[in-house]
Amino acid sequence: MEGARQLREDYPWIHTPLVVGAPMRLIALADMAVEISKAGGLGFIGVGTDTSTLCSDLQAAAKLIDKSSIKTGHSVMPIGVGFINWGADLSTAIPLIAQYQPAAVWFFAPTSMSSLSKWTTQTRNASPRTKVWVQIGSVKEAVEAMQAARPDVLVVQGTDAGGHGLAQGASLITLLPEVSDNVSPKCGEGRYPQPILIAAGGIADARGVAAALALGAPGVVLGTRFLASPEANISKGYRDEILRANDGGQSTARSKIYDNLRGIAGWAETHNARGVINKSYVDAMAGMDEEENQKLYEEEVKKGDAGWGVEARMTTYAGSGVGLVRDVKPAGDIVREVREGSRAVLEGLSGGAVVGKL
Amino acid sequence: MEGARQLREDYPWIHTPLVVGAPMRLIALADMAVEISKAGGLGFIGVGTDTSTLCSDLQAAAKLIDKSSIKTGHSVMPIGVGFINWGADLSTAIPLIAQYQPAAVWFFAPTSMSSLSKWTTQTRNASPRTKVWVQIGSVKEAVEAMQAARPDVLVVQGTDAGGHGLAQGASLITLLPEVSDNVSPKCGEGRYPQPILIAAGGIADARGVAAALALGAPGVVLGTRFLASPEANISKGYRDEILRANDGGQSTARSKIYDNLRGIAGWAETHNARGVINKSYVDAMAGMDEEENQKLYEEEVKKGDAGWGVEARMTTYAGSGVGLVRDVKPAGDIVREVREGSRAVLEGLSGGAVVGKL
Repeated sequence: MEGARQLREDYPWIHTPLVVGAPMRLIALADMAVEISKAGGLGFIGVGTDTSTLCSDLQAAAKLIDKSSIKTGHSVMPIGVGFINWGADLSTAIPLIAQYQPAAVWFFAPTSMSSLSKWTTQTRNASPRTKVWVQIGSVKEAVEAMQAARPDVLVVQGTDAGGHGLAQGASLITLLPEVSDNVSPKCGEGRYPQPILIAAGGIADARGVAAALALGAPGVVLGTRFLASPEANISKGYRDEILRANDGGQSTARSKIYDNLRGIAGWAETHNARGVINKSYVDAMAGMDEEENQKLYEEEVKKGDAGWGVEARMTTYAGSGVGLVRDVKPAGDIVREVREGSRAVLEGLSGGAVVGKL
Repeated sequence: MEGARQLREDYPWIHTPLVVGAPMRLIALADMAVEISKAGGLGFIGVGTDTSTLCSDLQAAAKLIDKSSIKTGHSVMPIGVGFINWGADLSTAIPLIAQYQPAAVWFFAPTSMSSLSKWTTQTRNASPRTKVWVQIGSVKEAVEAMQAARPDVLVVQGTDAGGHGLAQGASLITLLPEVSDNVSPKCGEGRYPQPILIAAGGIADARGVAAALALGAPGVVLGTRFLASPEANISKGYRDEILRANDGGQSTARSKIYDNLRGIAGWAETHNARGVINKSYVDAMAGMDEEENQKLYEEEVKKGDAGWGVEARMTTYAGSGVGLVRDVKPAGDIVREVREGSRAVLEGLSGGAVVGKL
């Protein structure tokens, strides 16, 4: 697979299949990003919509990296930074990208393709070795992103993903192969190289990694799995809820209610977020007035860790893979475990027991 | 993988990974089922809710099988029959199961677990060599089905599937591993053998088959892919729409509207169906009165093949893998192509280009 070779060239410290830490806003900070990269993955800082802490986050990461022995090759910083572009401030971000030269930037949910193009051009001017990753959730978005930005990487997000993504969509099972078929340069159209596809959405263990490889991605993004690591910047209540929830397709749902209750405005109508079903969601589905629901939410916030749970109201963003998350592990151990495990899964299958004839 | 060995023992004519033809109601009849089995797969007749044609369908299949050379082993009929149990008539079905001894029965959406148990017991009494397959869409359903029926096979259906299934759910990416972990007999609980898991929902080509294997299923179900075969009992308009639709997560949606317009009652509130988005769906989402929508639908029916399409109103049930279906092929060729292709995908991955270290 050509993509794997390219990944190892672009990020010399990684092992393949590449395990990426999702840029979870407020949750994936310097500590998590660096631990993931130290284990041969690629960690992202979740900048999200607010670039005001980006400088201190990058400074913190730089210190942690100085103390480690990551082979960075082209002198880039061996982590990435992830933006939610509709809210992020370009003029704050670009000088910091120029100064710290992260290995990658991850763009998601820009207001327009011309905005995506602008972020991309300015990033490449500011730090030519920084790779541009663009997250998409449909074939249409993939083709548009290729035309606007020619990203190095398309992060293909299936609908099992936790947190924000397209409200309407397919899982990786169909989305990844269909995107792959539609972004391959066709004969006579070789104007841009094939982007590397990285799979996101529902991957929480070695089996999911192996499946993503089979579907055509030489690397994967894990988000929900890293919530159960000491490096995740979340409350105990949030983490306990991640460990509790099972039957992920039933215990989570996509909705706009959690953003609405928390007063987070700005997401387009096309996007919502997957979280663990709780009282806020059940009440909203039953028709409760949003103002009343919000009042109850605000009271719940005061309870601290007790505010999370199926009978409580604090938001637990998580993907449908939440049922596969059963223990807390250091982020680096998660990286190694799912990567090595995926090799074992594939070696077991190619041994012939399954794929052999009679 | 233990399941693959068991499959080859239970269905001696098959090759693994097993490719199964979904029991699509009114669409997958004797011709398709037999062609799939002749190619080393396992074809199902889609009996659905109406058992009145089961006798003639089985008779037709028996004639087709007589003319072929399928190795049946234990003298079962080398195809399966699929029921939608809430509507199917047990007293019609059982004598025909006894007479024709299909290799498998596929149960889906029973009114209760005691009903599922009754269907299972009577089937096993009527034809001990007939294997019992039960379709589930959540971990909860899987565990309940195991307790009620101890099926030989659990068909694990992810939310990408076309036609009917759970309205709320996860894709195979998370559902299959989580079901697998929850139906494995635990230490001291070895009362029943581990069921074989067969993956359904969004699998339309070799990459999907390989992914399902990686996720833990030694076999897969294809439905939407077989709609583009000459053996599918559908109109040209329906088939053309399958070939046209792409970006499957965007061009299809889960809804109850299609059943409602066609006057199909009986499905539980928990279930709906995925179909290609058309005018009926768009109008329903925009708030059109259902009676008005139904009237427009009934006018559309008169148009024949022209009644299908994104600007038309005839129902095109299809999974989100519809964008991967680009040509019409004989059902047997599809079976061979995806099976052999999945081996090539896995062999390519285990070659080391992707999973090798630096």
